Amino acid sequence: MIHITPEEQAGTAGKPGSQFTGTAFPYVTMAQTDGVTINTVVFTPGARTHWHSHENGQILQVLAGRGLVQSEGGPIEVLRAGDTVWVPPGERHWHGAAPDSFLSHTAISLGTTSWEHPVADHEYEPSRDSEGSEQ
Amino acid sequence: MIHITPEEQAGTAGKPGSQFTGTAFPYVTMAQTDGVTINTVVFTPGARTHWHSHENGQILQVLAGRGLVQSEGGPIEVLRAGDTVWVPPGERHWHGAAPDSFLSHTAISLGTTSWEHPVADHEYEPSRDSEGSEQ
Repeated sequence: MIHITPEEQAGTAGKPGSQFTGTAFPYVTMAQTDGVTINTVVFTPGARTHWHSHENGQILQVLAGRGLVQSEGGPIEVLRAGDTVWVPPGERHWHGAAPDSFLSHTAISLGTTSWEHPVADHEYEPSRDSEGSEQ
Repeated sequence: MIHITPEEQAGTAGKPGSQFTGTAFPYVTMAQTDGVTINTVVFTPGARTHWHSHENGQILQVLAGRGLVQSEGGPIEVLRAGDTVWVPPGERHWHGAAPDSFLSHTAISLGTTSWEHPVADHEYEPSRDSEGSEQ
């Protein structure tokens, strides 16, 4: 058994360009063990992951703030405290803060994570993009 | 993607005799999906699971209260809010409330769960058992 107390979480500053757009603060609760990785991440407003997928799926648990999540081909859904999301194995998706709010969530990733390209501004805020083109 | 809001959790009263000793209130956050099951459980003081194991392991996340957890052959460890526990695949264990506190935790179970016999009083409170035999 591995028993992790809050004091034992290892915090690191965000790594823009590799996994995130904007500034995010990932805290490692449990580094990969038996194929399971647990991170708690604070996203600043507008920050989000790149597109990615998980070999055996991912659980997101929203702790505070307001966020966004989208699977490839699906709608952008709003995340609020208390929400739980299951992303099936191999499903391409992204998640992050809303444009005007921070987001704190715990992410439990199963198997290997495959990182891809950034979420473009027109993907993150399609309505704002439309407004812009109307002007 | 499956997106579960707090209102969508299905609550059920405890089922003493099948999985728990004492009274526990399991709430199903996500019924088994792609081999992943998410439950939030409130244990009343003294309540605990039976001995059991999970095919691909289990994550416990302590939300509130104070609890106990033990893997077979290991010490009884105290659970407090903010703690995370990883129980490896196939490791026999139990968890529940402390004798004098409720416990609320989220349990994420991977693969099939194998339930066994109840945790005896002398296993749950070995110090109390010793005190009793001295009188």
